[in-house]
Amino acid sequence: MSTPWGDWLTAQADQRELDGLRRSLTPRAAGDRVVDLAGNDYLGLSHHPAVVAAAAVAARTWGAGAGASRLVTGTLQVHADLEAALAAYLRQPAALVFSTGYHANLSVVSALADRECRVVSDAHVHASLVDAVRLSRAALTVVPHNAVAAVRSALAGSRGRRTLVLAESVYSVLGDRAPLVELAAVCEEYDALLVVDEAHGLGVHGAGLVEQLGLAGLPHVVVTATLSKSLGSQGGAVLGSSALVEHLVNRARPFIFDTGLAPTSTAAALAALEVLRAHPGLPGLVRRRVDDLAAALGVEPPAGAVLSVPMPSPRVALAAQASALAQGVRVGCFRPPSVPDGISRLRVTVGAGVPAEDWARATEVLVAVVKEHS
Amino acid sequence: MSTPWGDWLTAQADQRELDGLRRSLTPRAAGDRVVDLAGNDYLGLSHHPAVVAAAAVAARTWGAGAGASRLVTGTLQVHADLEAALAAYLRQPAALVFSTGYHANLSVVSALADRECRVVSDAHVHASLVDAVRLSRAALTVVPHNAVAAVRSALAGSRGRRTLVLAESVYSVLGDRAPLVELAAVCEEYDALLVVDEAHGLGVHGAGLVEQLGLAGLPHVVVTATLSKSLGSQGGAVLGSSALVEHLVNRARPFIFDTGLAPTSTAAALAALEVLRAHPGLPGLVRRRVDDLAAALGVEPPAGAVLSVPMPSPRVALAAQASALAQGVRVGCFRPPSVPDGISRLRVTVGAGVPAEDWARATEVLVAVVKEHS
Repeated sequence: MSTPWGDWLTAQADQRELDGLRRSLTPRAAGDRVVDLAGNDYLGLSHHPAVVAAAAVAARTWGAGAGASRLVTGTLQVHADLEAALAAYLRQPAALVFSTGYHANLSVVSALADRECRVVSDAHVHASLVDAVRLSRAALTVVPHNAVAAVRSALAGSRGRRTLVLAESVYSVLGDRAPLVELAAVCEEYDALLVVDEAHGLGVHGAGLVEQLGLAGLPHVVVTATLSKSLGSQGGAVLGSSALVEHLVNRARPFIFDTGLAPTSTAAALAALEVLRAHPGLPGLVRRRVDDLAAALGVEPPAGAVLSVPMPSPRVALAAQASALAQGVRVGCFRPPSVPDGISRLRVTVGAGVPAEDWARATEVLVAVVKEHS
Repeated sequence: MSTPWGDWLTAQADQRELDGLRRSLTPRAAGDRVVDLAGNDYLGLSHHPAVVAAAAVAARTWGAGAGASRLVTGTLQVHADLEAALAAYLRQPAALVFSTGYHANLSVVSALADRECRVVSDAHVHASLVDAVRLSRAALTVVPHNAVAAVRSALAGSRGRRTLVLAESVYSVLGDRAPLVELAAVCEEYDALLVVDEAHGLGVHGAGLVEQLGLAGLPHVVVTATLSKSLGSQGGAVLGSSALVEHLVNRARPFIFDTGLAPTSTAAALAALEVLRAHPGLPGLVRRRVDDLAAALGVEPPAGAVLSVPMPSPRVALAAQASALAQGVRVGCFRPPSVPDGISRLRVTVGAGVPAEDWARATEVLVAVVKEHS
């Protein structure tokens, strides 16, 4: 039966097909023997025995779900434990856990900024921060990537207004890092609040770049993080002052009106954090593998754990990806329009969890594939 | 150190304190012996042995996290299995699973509606749908609660525009149900798409009211659901045509840019659905308890599993809640501003998972508490 909405959906799908932009879901099978260098499980902790066991114990102890929103009766002791452990590890006064990293970003921006505010955002921040600004209804100024001078001039033009500055510590597509020290200084100078998303920094750089640069706990720097990358689980967190956390508990709609993070995911993230604290060499292992693979492939080593290998065209990028998969190595593929600069790339995630033999074989495969497709 | 943002947070906190609106998190301890009638685990499936076991097995099989976004490499066979099972149970052509119910609602509205569209929303829909409309930038018309005539006149005024109508099948605060048959008819007449949130209908009413009323699979009716209430886990879903699901996979930003739902939560929801299918009497048990408790407390039985007991004031409501807790029964409390009509209420969730003896004792406690505080 044809309906206007049905016709619209068909037209949209036809256009995607025409533009070569149609994407679809391909389920992974259990026990798949492929070496996965496409995900974000940077430290391999998703499969760590202590993490897996913690999830199982939490299901038995608390049930499979939190059962309610956090303010009603869905705050469990395991949430409080994870929040305390995150705050301690990232050297922040307080932390609040969310059901996804997306919600952490939506919450911090939409609960702090309103129509009266200005948000100055790096051009490459994550979709969740872009959506967060839209939800907040604040005035938005997008500045060129990593351009501190542009941030400064936007702040100079917003004096007297509450202003947020948005950045990521590590940008995964381009593989570069934000000039955090400079951004924090300019935010302090202009009374702005810097929000730093450590999604790709936490774990790969220990407690994250904010902590490593001595910016943790500064009143004008707020951190958001995800529990689904280096911590191998699901969820997100905001870290900052107790006053900030108290504000989010009372005002952040994606926190208040959402069921609490599942006890399994909460306990898994807590166990992963304990593994990371007990094995402070893990981040270094990832970064050594990044450097080695970058050298082997002839690309610059990125600041994060994701290598981007430029390909001559979207078609060749897909062919290279298929060739690697046929040889047992799964890598990602960035094509327009999801790359900021129009250049197609293979996206190779380095993981500390890949056994050394698999890692050596995967490196060989990728070197050959890239050589063949350059 | 005083900063403008710090001062603003302090002023906001002071105002909340002054207004009596300050809320804080109270962690539940493990092994807490209180009878919990405050959450949304309507069927008690969060603690069902099969559900708990499924979460543990999934952690071992897939790891604690999905490891990537769904379009990259975070779609696991267990996601596909849950989507197929949800579609079959709700008698819909297709389903898509999200990391929270909030994201399901954000996604369906923001991926379908844009500046060119109109959204006609019931005044009492969930915060996630309100935020979704804001994200979409569509023109919004809020109509009085359950007022079909107002929906009709809004649709008559929007002819020629793609229009969404938003409703919940069961409204948990007021405990009433939407006039779904009438809303579906008026949407069909005006070529609008009806989006029905079954958060409080699924499970309590078997496959939900849309299915029970014979509206499942109609091209002008889309369903959203949560996995964190009757299914005892975490996550959300959108159910409708394959074309709709394909559109969401390609266009819904909170789907595309989010890590996939954790395997533990995915498998738990799937196991809960299997328990529900194997025990078709569960929803009836909940509704009998609702009827019995409503009769005992002298209130109208609600359409969902949440009883609202009006209290003379916010203060008395809090005192009644504290008195019940002192006697081992946890109930919720609705106070302004989170009630649509300004009336404070005790919020009592009926759960099929509460053992019969505990249920009998809880009923006695609540009858006495309500009598004392009316």
